[in-house]
Amino acid sequence: MNYVDIPPPPPHAELRADVDVDLAGTVHRVRRLAARAFVTLLLPGGLLQVVVEGGVPESVRTGAALRVEGRLRTASLRDPALAWPGLELAAERVEVLASPTATPPFDLGRPELAATPEHRLEHRPIALRHPKVRAVFTIQAALVRAFREHLDGLGFTGIHSPKLGAQGAEGGASLFELPYFGRRAVLAQSPQLYKEMCVAAFGRVYEVGPVFRAEPHATRRHLNEYTSLDVELGPLGDLGALMALEVGLLRAMFAHVRERCARELALLGVAPPTAARAVSLPFAAVKARSGEAGDDLSPGEERAACAWAEAEAGAELVFVTQYPSSKRPFYARDCAADPTVTESFDLLYRGTEITTGGLRIHEPDVLRAKLVARGMDPEAFGFFLQAHDCGLPPHGGFGLGLERLTALICGLDNVRDAALFPRDAHRLSP
Amino acid sequence: MNYVDIPPPPPHAELRADVDVDLAGTVHRVRRLAARAFVTLLLPGGLLQVVVEGGVPESVRTGAALRVEGRLRTASLRDPALAWPGLELAAERVEVLASPTATPPFDLGRPELAATPEHRLEHRPIALRHPKVRAVFTIQAALVRAFREHLDGLGFTGIHSPKLGAQGAEGGASLFELPYFGRRAVLAQSPQLYKEMCVAAFGRVYEVGPVFRAEPHATRRHLNEYTSLDVELGPLGDLGALMALEVGLLRAMFAHVRERCARELALLGVAPPTAARAVSLPFAAVKARSGEAGDDLSPGEERAACAWAEAEAGAELVFVTQYPSSKRPFYARDCAADPTVTESFDLLYRGTEITTGGLRIHEPDVLRAKLVARGMDPEAFGFFLQAHDCGLPPHGGFGLGLERLTALICGLDNVRDAALFPRDAHRLSP
Repeated sequence: MNYVDIPPPPPHAELRADVDVDLAGTVHRVRRLAARAFVTLLLPGGLLQVVVEGGVPESVRTGAALRVEGRLRTASLRDPALAWPGLELAAERVEVLASPTATPPFDLGRPELAATPEHRLEHRPIALRHPKVRAVFTIQAALVRAFREHLDGLGFTGIHSPKLGAQGAEGGASLFELPYFGRRAVLAQSPQLYKEMCVAAFGRVYEVGPVFRAEPHATRRHLNEYTSLDVELGPLGDLGALMALEVGLLRAMFAHVRERCARELALLGVAPPTAARAVSLPFAAVKARSGEAGDDLSPGEERAACAWAEAEAGAELVFVTQYPSSKRPFYARDCAADPTVTESFDLLYRGTEITTGGLRIHEPDVLRAKLVARGMDPEAFGFFLQAHDCGLPPHGGFGLGLERLTALICGLDNVRDAALFPRDAHRLSP
Repeated sequence: MNYVDIPPPPPHAELRADVDVDLAGTVHRVRRLAARAFVTLLLPGGLLQVVVEGGVPESVRTGAALRVEGRLRTASLRDPALAWPGLELAAERVEVLASPTATPPFDLGRPELAATPEHRLEHRPIALRHPKVRAVFTIQAALVRAFREHLDGLGFTGIHSPKLGAQGAEGGASLFELPYFGRRAVLAQSPQLYKEMCVAAFGRVYEVGPVFRAEPHATRRHLNEYTSLDVELGPLGDLGALMALEVGLLRAMFAHVRERCARELALLGVAPPTAARAVSLPFAAVKARSGEAGDDLSPGEERAACAWAEAEAGAELVFVTQYPSSKRPFYARDCAADPTVTESFDLLYRGTEITTGGLRIHEPDVLRAKLVARGMDPEAFGFFLQAHDCGLPPHGGFGLGLERLTALICGLDNVRDAALFPRDAHRLSP
């Protein structure tokens, strides 16, 4: 048989002045003057300005794909969306690779995406092409990259747990159910049981993956499908070590965003994220101060706790500890001194909860008793109990909602704007 | 309110001789001699041998969690499962943090996990604790890490597309369906449509995430839920550039595994993965050689093509190109010279298909005509067509099945052994 050898790809070139290049990209915007045209071209690293003397044909418009040969030269450009404001490409040859047949539903060349939230979501694939929308997901990708790199460096193993299962980890009515080869399956609300069992095999694990909640939410901070950044480790002695781990992780993630996404942060007009100081407060103390009843914190109490910690302690991260046992899942560890509260926390940032975490029950008899006390069937959790019977170290972990964290960093009012293609009770498409 | 400051965690310490340490881990195995005990302890970096003069109590057994203080010293140990065969920890103090109440269903201390495949899967959370099983997932995590790092370095953006949607990308009967707030939703068979639409916004994208196939498979190479490593990019001129990208990516992934997982490869007794040479062969040439009919390759034909490429060209990666259009999804690009075949490929490695990839249709009129010709409803793909109408560059990409690639590298006969918690028509738990 005749075969063709596949060569390795050419190395990735840095763009710099006085270099001849042959680049392909997608047209973001075109400005036509009498004698020349300015084309903003999307490359893998961001937007580059291209100058074409003599102008460009009609087919060169927003959404077209071009191949441009020419020479890079220094420039001093003021468009904050440009990735290379110090460079422009003087085109010598322009080839149109593809050209759109329709005009986008919004003007992508304007500094702001002028559209109602509903209109933006309806035409989400097109809205993603706006530099300010794209910036949100560049920051999101940087957060995930730093999350993984930091934990890889601490000896964690990245895992992939199943999203189809026989029962949920959190209980309650928030499970999506589906027929599965003559049986009933559910979609994972969290990788909780799997990550706990993996602690015995790997010691330290993390997962980046989707989770599904069937709650008919209509709030600005909930989604029915979101990306959870999950961490679990053992042996783990106390809650303080877990909180310290999360502080170190968030600092690394924020530092990475400050270093790699300075342009995106500036484009969005938001302050670079920092986490200079972190404090913890007991749940009861937050309640005593607010004077509100209830065994959970309201959004108003979360905002007030953050404002207080910022003003009094200069702290941006606020761990609220000793949550009531009644509001925590069956696997949460109760405090030895007071079993009505748990060795767990919610972490608040910029006024909103971004994490729930804590120590878990590792003793099989305690876990069985807790399941029975909650009216749950230990038989349904047989494999989870077996993992405890055969030995799980004292362990704990947390889950961090990626979209919510992204929204807070990017100053977005609605978590939907931090999901590429958000899913809520009314939205299953695009 | 009184608050407690959260300090950053202590730095991660390297283990080396003549250093005093205070470590916590899980007991993998205990050997009791008259005057001392040897405890193999699982730490985040792997297994370390601990020597306890005077022996250890009964509660120190497989699955127990220990805290050990003592001094590290040089040693020369022969257990291939040890991460530090040149070190042992002379314990001065041993604290039992937790101890199991049951004996594991298999002896985890033996070099091989002596159990039937069914028994291993039934007790999967415990089987994962065996060093040879754990090694598979250490290699898998390394593959994912290298996949991301290589593509991050080439300007790709990591994305998270929704797994719940209104319709599938691939068509056919292999969709899981579920009720969704009074409507019907499906689970994603692939991120195909989303990654294509993201090319216009980001240029180059990748995703690591679960995909779901409702086919009642019972083969050694299929799962109903698996992890797909997806890549898509544009502008992309020709299939050769895409194949070159994948060759470079696989070489980087294999190099990472060779460097980071040498111990795991040796423990599994498999050759380090290489991809010294890659070739491409037309589909029709493979068929002509085998003499078999049909418009897809049989497993036997895939094995024969690999054996031939290895023998004749010294090639480990075999791209089979020009697949019949009838067997490819609606978005696949037909060859200009012969529209009965596509600008697509399957990539074979060690006798098995690990990737399907190719160029896509980027012209909206061609895409509409293809949908109609297939009897599919263009209305159902309205948002995908709008993305084409508003301009998509010529683009292409591929998807790589993580479990299948892991199985081939680790010499596993069944892809189930390369999934942490495999899902098939008969298995939804653990």
